[in-house]
Amino acid sequence: MSELISVAVDAMGGDNAPLEIVKGAVEAVNEEPKVKCLLVGQSDVITSELAKYQFDKSRIEIVEASEVITNDEAPVMAIRRKKDSSIVVGMNLVKDGQAGAFVSAGSTGAVLVGGQLIAGRIKGVERTPLAPLIPTLGGPALLIDCGANVDARPNHLVQFAKMGSIYMENVVGISNPRVAIVNIGTEEEKGNALVKETYPLLKACPDINFVGSIESRRIPYGDADVIVCEAFTGNVILKLYEGVAGALILTVKDALKSNPATMLGGALIKSSLKKSLSGFTTEGNGGAPMLGLNGLVIKTHGSSKSIEIKNSILQSVVFSEKKISEKIARNIQTD
Amino acid sequence: MSELISVAVDAMGGDNAPLEIVKGAVEAVNEEPKVKCLLVGQSDVITSELAKYQFDKSRIEIVEASEVITNDEAPVMAIRRKKDSSIVVGMNLVKDGQAGAFVSAGSTGAVLVGGQLIAGRIKGVERTPLAPLIPTLGGPALLIDCGANVDARPNHLVQFAKMGSIYMENVVGISNPRVAIVNIGTEEEKGNALVKETYPLLKACPDINFVGSIESRRIPYGDADVIVCEAFTGNVILKLYEGVAGALILTVKDALKSNPATMLGGALIKSSLKKSLSGFTTEGNGGAPMLGLNGLVIKTHGSSKSIEIKNSILQSVVFSEKKISEKIARNIQTD
Repeated sequence: MSELISVAVDAMGGDNAPLEIVKGAVEAVNEEPKVKCLLVGQSDVITSELAKYQFDKSRIEIVEASEVITNDEAPVMAIRRKKDSSIVVGMNLVKDGQAGAFVSAGSTGAVLVGGQLIAGRIKGVERTPLAPLIPTLGGPALLIDCGANVDARPNHLVQFAKMGSIYMENVVGISNPRVAIVNIGTEEEKGNALVKETYPLLKACPDINFVGSIESRRIPYGDADVIVCEAFTGNVILKLYEGVAGALILTVKDALKSNPATMLGGALIKSSLKKSLSGFTTEGNGGAPMLGLNGLVIKTHGSSKSIEIKNSILQSVVFSEKKISEKIARNIQTD
Repeated sequence: MSELISVAVDAMGGDNAPLEIVKGAVEAVNEEPKVKCLLVGQSDVITSELAKYQFDKSRIEIVEASEVITNDEAPVMAIRRKKDSSIVVGMNLVKDGQAGAFVSAGSTGAVLVGGQLIAGRIKGVERTPLAPLIPTLGGPALLIDCGANVDARPNHLVQFAKMGSIYMENVVGISNPRVAIVNIGTEEEKGNALVKETYPLLKACPDINFVGSIESRRIPYGDADVIVCEAFTGNVILKLYEGVAGALILTVKDALKSNPATMLGGALIKSSLKKSLSGFTTEGNGGAPMLGLNGLVIKTHGSSKSIEIKNSILQSVVFSEKKISEKIARNIQTD
């Protein structure tokens, strides 16, 4: 039997921890025979959750961590002080090579800081972007960077483009992914200072399939697979996506409630509509990878259910099997 | 009889020129007895369009402009070379005081450049932002700046906040409008360098009702009336709004076509849904004002129909009556 791939999972992070987290780990183990999950957190709580399920006991292990970092805590301080928190313990498992990846639905700030300070960057990588998959009419696209390090420089964006391409090609399975830079027009001379400096560097980069600028209007239509931007812009895009979609769905729901005819109409379309709109959520894709680390860190939404946790764990298996960190290291070091 | 308010209108600009433009001007004159429209463009074309309608002939005048600036032309060059274009002639009417405002659905770049170079800035105004009204569940909000001048400085953003507040209070009729700055979190210490520098300046500004940071997720829910940002960010927000809404509406339409039951359901909800979604378009609001100029310049969407032209003309009347340019001048000069 070939060696198992170990994935550490933050059992204490997120709104639905530990219930949905433990459930997601069990589901992953039951679906993927190559994975072993290390559930990090308070062992008594995890043990009683695990008691609910049937699974191969040799492939789920509990790693004790007595503390929990909450969303209200200042990330740097929390990572420094809470040495026995599930995030710090989980990151250390990655650092020490005991796990190939760490999945957490906990505090985004703490996960980003922990990734940088503990898991550590690949040599040559200057910044470690957080890169969620966003839904488009053409399938998921990688929005890189949406993390905490704003005011990036052009060479950072070039590294994002390379790492994002490797991820989309190998983990998501998009061959020769189209890379575009977010801009306010499609002409080459358009943009702010950062985009104008970055554009020619991307154009000259031999390792990527650069297709030019993308206006935000075209992002939801799937015109690019790897959408490169600085983290402030990425954060605005990610959250506005969620906001506009949420507000529109509320509007549609209200319209359906306006009279008996629309209520009947609503009943007739409900399941079809739900199915269509579900293509416009990211749950099925798992969480957002933080790229450029020694090992993978995946941040899932704070409201994650078991399906996102399971998918993030399966994503981690592919990441390890395809040796993405090594590919990134080779690609960055040939600069 | 009190004096008429003259509004210059670019009869040649936009996808539906001159037909919808001339129609919009006629509708405005028929609705608002205080307005006189100066239709700028090729007089033979305009004359034959006007022949279709009934209206008070003393309140529509044709101002000849033989040239047309297209969307493909480089804006600065076009404004400099095409002295007899409808945009240049219209801007000169504002500069010379013959019109209080100029409305155009033509090239955004040329309108922005023409506004700055010809109409001229109010003394003390450093940048003249383009500020479209965007739809939210709480009514329209002003997104300022979405123009062409990226990489703004903190004091520019403070001026945007002041001008935007005056516009929303006096033209749109929102008393004590809530001003927020676009940010990647709501805590005061969050943001990129620009936001971190601007935040305390806005907080200290006595003339505005500053409510702090707004994450883009909350924009569609109407948490602020004046949404301040640098033009690159504003452009990304404006176009993504359009993109996500468009892609989602396509998705809903597809869902309704999936089988006979959903088609029946779709027929039952159609008019109610259309009405609800129309609240999520900006047509009824007219175009985007370019603020800080001596006079008003309004840029409407390239695909504008008569209703947007009419509403932009009516908006211009309010702007002139309430002496917004004078209010901005006073407010900026007390800095």
